[in-house]
Amino acid sequence: MTYKAPVRDLIFALNEAAGFGALTAAYPGADAETVRAVLDGAGQLASDVLAPLNRTGDIEGARYENGIVRSAAGFSDAYRQFAEGGWGSLASDAEYGGQGLPKALEMAVFEILQAGNLAFSLCPMLTQGAIEAIEKNGDARQKRLYLPKLISGEWTGTMNLTEPQAGSDLGALTTRAEKDGDNWRLHGQKIFITWGEHDMADNIVHLVLARLPNAPPGSRGLSLFLTPKRLVNEDGAPGEANALKCGSIEHKLGIHASPTCVMLFEGAKAELVGAPNQGLAAMFVMMNAARLAVGVQGVAIAERAYQQALAYALERKQGRSAWTGAYPSRIFDHPDVRRSLMLMKAKIEAARGLCLATAVAADLAKTAGNPVDRDTALFRQELLTPIAKAWSTDLGVEVASTALQVQGGMGFIEETGAAQFYRDARILPIYEGANGIHAIDLMGRKLALGKGQAVRKLVEDIVPTAAALKSADDAWLHTVGAHLESGLAAVQSATGWLIERRGHAQPDALAGATPYLKLLGDVIGGWMLGKGALAASKRLAAGDPDPDYCRTKIGLARVFAEQVLAQAPGLTQAVTQGSVDLFRATPEALGA
Amino acid sequence: MTYKAPVRDLIFALNEAAGFGALTAAYPGADAETVRAVLDGAGQLASDVLAPLNRTGDIEGARYENGIVRSAAGFSDAYRQFAEGGWGSLASDAEYGGQGLPKALEMAVFEILQAGNLAFSLCPMLTQGAIEAIEKNGDARQKRLYLPKLISGEWTGTMNLTEPQAGSDLGALTTRAEKDGDNWRLHGQKIFITWGEHDMADNIVHLVLARLPNAPPGSRGLSLFLTPKRLVNEDGAPGEANALKCGSIEHKLGIHASPTCVMLFEGAKAELVGAPNQGLAAMFVMMNAARLAVGVQGVAIAERAYQQALAYALERKQGRSAWTGAYPSRIFDHPDVRRSLMLMKAKIEAARGLCLATAVAADLAKTAGNPVDRDTALFRQELLTPIAKAWSTDLGVEVASTALQVQGGMGFIEETGAAQFYRDARILPIYEGANGIHAIDLMGRKLALGKGQAVRKLVEDIVPTAAALKSADDAWLHTVGAHLESGLAAVQSATGWLIERRGHAQPDALAGATPYLKLLGDVIGGWMLGKGALAASKRLAAGDPDPDYCRTKIGLARVFAEQVLAQAPGLTQAVTQGSVDLFRATPEALGA
Repeated sequence: MTYKAPVRDLIFALNEAAGFGALTAAYPGADAETVRAVLDGAGQLASDVLAPLNRTGDIEGARYENGIVRSAAGFSDAYRQFAEGGWGSLASDAEYGGQGLPKALEMAVFEILQAGNLAFSLCPMLTQGAIEAIEKNGDARQKRLYLPKLISGEWTGTMNLTEPQAGSDLGALTTRAEKDGDNWRLHGQKIFITWGEHDMADNIVHLVLARLPNAPPGSRGLSLFLTPKRLVNEDGAPGEANALKCGSIEHKLGIHASPTCVMLFEGAKAELVGAPNQGLAAMFVMMNAARLAVGVQGVAIAERAYQQALAYALERKQGRSAWTGAYPSRIFDHPDVRRSLMLMKAKIEAARGLCLATAVAADLAKTAGNPVDRDTALFRQELLTPIAKAWSTDLGVEVASTALQVQGGMGFIEETGAAQFYRDARILPIYEGANGIHAIDLMGRKLALGKGQAVRKLVEDIVPTAAALKSADDAWLHTVGAHLESGLAAVQSATGWLIERRGHAQPDALAGATPYLKLLGDVIGGWMLGKGALAASKRLAAGDPDPDYCRTKIGLARVFAEQVLAQAPGLTQAVTQGSVDLFRATPEALGA
Repeated sequence: MTYKAPVRDLIFALNEAAGFGALTAAYPGADAETVRAVLDGAGQLASDVLAPLNRTGDIEGARYENGIVRSAAGFSDAYRQFAEGGWGSLASDAEYGGQGLPKALEMAVFEILQAGNLAFSLCPMLTQGAIEAIEKNGDARQKRLYLPKLISGEWTGTMNLTEPQAGSDLGALTTRAEKDGDNWRLHGQKIFITWGEHDMADNIVHLVLARLPNAPPGSRGLSLFLTPKRLVNEDGAPGEANALKCGSIEHKLGIHASPTCVMLFEGAKAELVGAPNQGLAAMFVMMNAARLAVGVQGVAIAERAYQQALAYALERKQGRSAWTGAYPSRIFDHPDVRRSLMLMKAKIEAARGLCLATAVAADLAKTAGNPVDRDTALFRQELLTPIAKAWSTDLGVEVASTALQVQGGMGFIEETGAAQFYRDARILPIYEGANGIHAIDLMGRKLALGKGQAVRKLVEDIVPTAAALKSADDAWLHTVGAHLESGLAAVQSATGWLIERRGHAQPDALAGATPYLKLLGDVIGGWMLGKGALAASKRLAAGDPDPDYCRTKIGLARVFAEQVLAQAPGLTQAVTQGSVDLFRATPEALGA
């Protein structure tokens, strides 16, 4: 269960698929040499420190003892190395100790760390979300007091949203804030709080959605609060314990080493972050960051599972290869196994491209040279975020499952680790918003952006890639282009139908949301691989020293086009014909 | 985590999709009243006895202590009730105590029992395979000595095939038989032996593939042996212990209560079953039975997981329904959740129809009135078996995953049971032949049956259903018919390509095997639902007292047609364009 960071593939995806080159002006420090050094360093941490704790952490799990949560053996030390290496500060504001690098590079690093150890890396991922929420919404004092400690990794952060009666529907939250002199005090219970309590850092900064007295009902009455585990003195040192605690941790299918906490706020001292009743918008900053990061987790666990399956297929000998004639042959040389491996790899690279392109858009939304470009980039980021989250995590589950399958009976045995990836991956389509919610966000809020402009601009950007592929003097590139074109036509037709229905037949549009997200994801995935294939083709023509690598990139694009993209147009039916009429069935007729 | 046997749906599937009516002549005892009584009885056993042990069995697991395997609490008692109820003897030969009912009914019962408790039901499933192998290949003495005890459930049976170096490639088996007077003695090690050792029955009859001295190499040198845990006296009573034992059991992702044993044969006394070196053919009898039964497990676990998701969706309230306007609304009334539930249900009914149709074919292959019809039925059984196994088990994993997703964060918590279904289901695409092997079997042996006659006849049988649907005076039926027709065209085109390639480009054909199986499964699934929809439409016209039920059957067929079948033609590309050329990539270029 070793892990080797796919540094070369990550650099290829950044440059050839995600458009990292557009960031050169704004991030002069993120030159090729720095990018490679950062990724190599992350790879070393992941391989040497995090990956070896993945299985032991799964077996041992986090342990709860009277309000205290003990992390699995080795985790505290690994966290110390993570923080000391500056791995939590890559994209943060230099004013508070960050390194000011692009989010796109940070996401590439996140992929590596999360592949090394998903349960571990959730802790810094949540911290990152807290940092962004304070950067965007905090006042000067809050930034000064909390950001340096969070960015350095000395403290960690959490997101406290879910309550038993309020999961997807945050409007139903009931945790309340009461005035106490100049302070607020929080009362309520939150569930599913990732790394809500642990022993790896000196303090934990909780960001909590709660209601002010007399707040309006629903999601318009939510405010964002900051409440630390230990109260922070004005000199920044953590002092006495706050009135909050972890009530229990969950016994879960996977990510055993990541404590999922019930958090009890029993009059905890808290400060308001941002304006009253604007909590949801403030929290969305965190959630957008976390959503992309969860999409990256889908890529990460798929890559890790794939690496294991590939190693197994190269090692395991069984039967005669109809291809090489060898007996016994490594199963890598059985066509069905090879198909399976290449399809996994193609899907991973498609999702990697999508996630990194989302991060590049986020960087451009902050740094592009003029407001029009910044708006365009912001629309792109907003449009891609739900797709990056949902499509990549469904893919993570699927690839972890296929990787297990390649290993046959051995994959089902816990000792080999394939089962852990399959278990761990399953949380990804659920947390940070269930994937169905992201599909609805895409169909609702995101289709509406600029009255449909976000999608139109995306389609416009894909068209030239499809055209270049189709007109290439290479049968494989041409095939990719042809499928990409059919996919685009399907996107346009489905989008038109949804935009029309959103007004007068919202339930029909809602019924088509999930297949629509799948369709867009498939087409964007094909676009990412298609861009990579065009670049690889140019490199080949220029006499690249590793033609195998370049040809494989073209092959992966074709595999994806024929094994995934070719089915995408069929999804149009699922989007446009799944009217709610069709779904009018009584519980009894459905077997209840 | 209750379970209610879907008796009404099973009867509908038997009669309207699987063609159970064709068995009336040969099985006069299997009248409607008997079928209902048998299914109700099985439902009671599953709900009252087996289902309550599912989660406790998962937690406790089977335990290994010095060669002894202790089943989880309650399992022995449940097994006693299973045996006393005659649930293991439904389709067995009346001469040896069986009830002589159709295999199709037995499979419907199996679905119920396996849904109740998959880990438990594996034990009788393997016993059933042993019974069929002895019925077909045993001599009179073996039948007299072993069949009554196995059929009554007093003893259980196992299949011993896999060895560490020989999984998919049985030709690599090395367990050997040595002559000892009139007896044979077995030496070797088998792995992954389901219920290879336990404390639920007086004796365990192992069927073992091994090599005679000087046997030819490869799969032509395998012979089938019977070797009991306790040697059997001529009066049928179990006597002294045989020289075999369980060396350890595996720590697995799922089916924890089913012991997966390493079996050590240390000179175990054994008898040959059937002719020397004909072991593989004899074992295939068992494997065919087991393969269909595993396909049924896919349906079973999907149904169980679906029932839980449906119950959750009816109970859990969250957000406002865009449909009913209710707030908070049960999530059942959110269009995306309803789509998800109906798609699960449609897939389950498609797979159920496929598996039961395979069983009906098996019954007809034995009992049809003339040899031509028996041959046709045998071809149908042979053709459908790999599809029933692979397509239904992939579907089982998928539905278990979707069911977990519907339950959001609660689905990821082990206490709710959704996670167990997801873990348990994952073995199904692996055991009894990994699904890739079944795809190759379909593309290889099964396409060759009667020089392609088996597939041609299948297509011929689907054509009239598609035509009747398409010409129906009902938009929904027409839609189903149109998609079924497109699917059939894709099957014909892909089949033609494969038949042509099988000769001169076998690796290319092998590369297309898995998507081809998926394509056939999708189309047969659509056929099953389409037949059901036509029947439901007739019932509606005849004034059926439950029009909701009938309309839902038509709706499910349309859901499947538009959300699954509509994408099936796109699979043609994956079958025919995935030439091995495309898969020529070095391990290094793939990331090794």
